[in-house]
Amino acid sequence: MRIKIASHSGFCFGVKRAINIAERTLKESRHTNNTYSLGSIIHNPQVVGDLSKKGLKVISGINNIKKGAVIISSHGATIEVIEKIKKKRLDLIDATCPFVKNVHNIVRDLKSSGYRIVIIGDKKHPEVKALLGLVGREAKSNKIAVISQTTQSKDNYLKGVAGLLKKDFSELRIFNTICNDTAHRQALTRDLLKECDVMVVVGGKNSANTRRLWHICKERGVDSYHIETDAELKEEYFRRKGCAGVVSGASTPDELVKKVVKKIKELNLKRKRGK
Amino acid sequence: MRIKIASHSGFCFGVKRAINIAERTLKESRHTNNTYSLGSIIHNPQVVGDLSKKGLKVISGINNIKKGAVIISSHGATIEVIEKIKKKRLDLIDATCPFVKNVHNIVRDLKSSGYRIVIIGDKKHPEVKALLGLVGREAKSNKIAVISQTTQSKDNYLKGVAGLLKKDFSELRIFNTICNDTAHRQALTRDLLKECDVMVVVGGKNSANTRRLWHICKERGVDSYHIETDAELKEEYFRRKGCAGVVSGASTPDELVKKVVKKIKELNLKRKRGK
Repeated sequence: MRIKIASHSGFCFGVKRAINIAERTLKESRHTNNTYSLGSIIHNPQVVGDLSKKGLKVISGINNIKKGAVIISSHGATIEVIEKIKKKRLDLIDATCPFVKNVHNIVRDLKSSGYRIVIIGDKKHPEVKALLGLVGREAKSNKIAVISQTTQSKDNYLKGVAGLLKKDFSELRIFNTICNDTAHRQALTRDLLKECDVMVVVGGKNSANTRRLWHICKERGVDSYHIETDAELKEEYFRRKGCAGVVSGASTPDELVKKVVKKIKELNLKRKRGK
Repeated sequence: MRIKIASHSGFCFGVKRAINIAERTLKESRHTNNTYSLGSIIHNPQVVGDLSKKGLKVISGINNIKKGAVIISSHGATIEVIEKIKKKRLDLIDATCPFVKNVHNIVRDLKSSGYRIVIIGDKKHPEVKALLGLVGREAKSNKIAVISQTTQSKDNYLKGVAGLLKKDFSELRIFNTICNDTAHRQALTRDLLKECDVMVVVGGKNSANTRRLWHICKERGVDSYHIETDAELKEEYFRRKGCAGVVSGASTPDELVKKVVKKIKELNLKRKRGK
């Protein structure tokens, strides 16, 4: 069995930046024992686990926090939460991805220009929650603007847009807010799908962009496994397969991908010997 | 055979306005023998013929005009032509439809904001020619804006938009610049097509919105005839038909439609007697 690894892997710009910000904050003596991250700073449990060992405390709200630094995750946070942090005079450390911030700015502009704003994304994801907070009450307008979660697939986005095209509008403004890194990994995944008959998608189970890669694989009807670490791999995944593709999400460390590839090779060898 | 007439007919707002402007200008003594229209003021040869009898002279260019009033047709004119009229110190009478003017304003705004502007319409139509003049040289931009000729059908427009959605863009801005009167007549035509097995479309052969109605009929595979006057009707059009639908364009006078209906009734009666 051949093994094909996507030519692009490792942290994306926004994830790398968020981890750097967290590590820098943890090193500052005044924050010792008081560095918090509001939700997972990035959606990879292994990386978050490592940061926790270094002292980062993941919290779901700031009600019980009295002092220290609160890091906004790479996905951003709602205005309400940010205001609350400021009001409590906690140190606000913003690790929101700059590409996500850019979408915030687009939403602000659209809102002040009277557009009805439609978001195509996962309602429960922190990125979308923060956007919904910015959008506020739905405006009644025949000028419609549509934005997507930065980790959406273009196909999925265009499906949503197709629905809006049927509506009555004086103007429909479509922003391509899918980030380049996401689009790139999706394109590489589609390429591998042309050659491979089994796909391994490495990344946090809570990672939207990783899950999206997995969905793209499943939509093509190819056997696909979304795993966080090599420990989840099973020999049977590769039985009677000619080519295994390995792709990973934007918050997946390169070492985890390397371990996964090593394990696939071992399982492959073991099976060969077994024959 | 039943005869069904579209519930909306007669001149649209822009056509009515243009005809009024022409008649008013013709009445002004200082313009006697010197009232010109740059191209057909509206796309109905019968109406233009009537205005010609009242003294309106249709010209294709102003090179040979030395004095008098030049009326810009309801479809608008290029900036170059307008500048030329001003330079020659002729009286400029603007009969451009306000809804078309609105599209001009949209194009100006988009151009100054750096959008690449796509027009979906008939390149040779004066409305589109004027718009192309405003657009000027194609801008290199990944912000795309798309507008349609005001007399386009929404189906056709959306087909063009679907092509643009496949392109790489940071933003795609779709303006619904199809005028209400056009949309209304198209909707009524589609309604009649559900009941009728022969359609008569009344209006200038050079009228874009009338031709569009005829195309909608043909696309449905229903026998359809685009005529300017009742003189063009033939008995055979209605042979073995259960229901004839009559629709008309935005520049078709109501009297012409009434004459067409009268003639269809006569042909119908004649055929019945012949049986």
